[in-house]
Amino acid sequence: MFEKREGERALAEDPAISPADGQVVFIGRIRSAWKKREDCPKNMRAARERGEQATIEIALPYRPGIDGLTRASHVIVLTWFHHAPRNLIVQKPRHATEAKGVFAIRSPVRPNPIGLHIARLLAVDEETGVLTLDAMDALDGTPVIDIKPYIPTVDVFADASFGKD
Amino acid sequence: MFEKREGERALAEDPAISPADGQVVFIGRIRSAWKKREDCPKNMRAARERGEQATIEIALPYRPGIDGLTRASHVIVLTWFHHAPRNLIVQKPRHATEAKGVFAIRSPVRPNPIGLHIARLLAVDEETGVLTLDAMDALDGTPVIDIKPYIPTVDVFADASFGKD
Repeated sequence: MFEKREGERALAEDPAISPADGQVVFIGRIRSAWKKREDCPKNMRAARERGEQATIEIALPYRPGIDGLTRASHVIVLTWFHHAPRNLIVQKPRHATEAKGVFAIRSPVRPNPIGLHIARLLAVDEETGVLTLDAMDALDGTPVIDIKPYIPTVDVFADASFGKD
Repeated sequence: MFEKREGERALAEDPAISPADGQVVFIGRIRSAWKKREDCPKNMRAARERGEQATIEIALPYRPGIDGLTRASHVIVLTWFHHAPRNLIVQKPRHATEAKGVFAIRSPVRPNPIGLHIARLLAVDEETGVLTLDAMDALDGTPVIDIKPYIPTVDVFADASFGKD
């Protein structure tokens, strides 16, 4: 499922089986149109182009946590890529010309398999714990570990650049 | 250190002592000018106003992971607030008029105590594993669990709003 490519480097100690420094709990699940990895858009821009909304189902104990979220137009969703390997510290993304450090790319394969997705929040149902998003680039069933409001004054950097070094 | 305020609600089961759904490893530490909680800026905008740079020290095994990061002008840093309680699902931030769900605020007190900080990347030393940032709103010594490049095409929403609902 995740083959090793030229120039890639593995960690001597796999974080998946290392002693834990901290523990996460799943607070909900993504519900998306993407059931297989090959169908899943590779980033949020591609997801938006596919025109499919998605939802997050918040687990019952955590539902009071979405109270007041409607004041945010966009949310930052943190997911847990529970099927991804964690031991590749240098990777060569498909179609990339050369291998790069994991912290320089947005691959799901990383020491802590946390995905970050920023989406427009279309609806909040506090009763059923369902958030409706404009798009999502994660497989149906992907665990969610955090949701944060996207705050323009601290999260927007209109002058940011990301080159092809 | 974290007193309970009016309108706040605790989870029946504390995520800090619940069975883990996943495990994190620390990949580095924040080095900042803030040694005590009362000195620490409350968000990145406030941190920037204080005019103090900060660094991230990447742990030795993870240093190859920063290769190629210089192509990003800004980075998203995920930290682990290891001293924060995790059981408050509805909270009343200091100076707020009413309590709100944890997923509607950026409090360090959350089911998974993950902090998200977007900073300008000033320098990358691959040899020593030190990243220099323009500012940081986290205490000196805070563990780091992930670093991602900030990518304008998927992370900038210039039309986003965050109201006072």
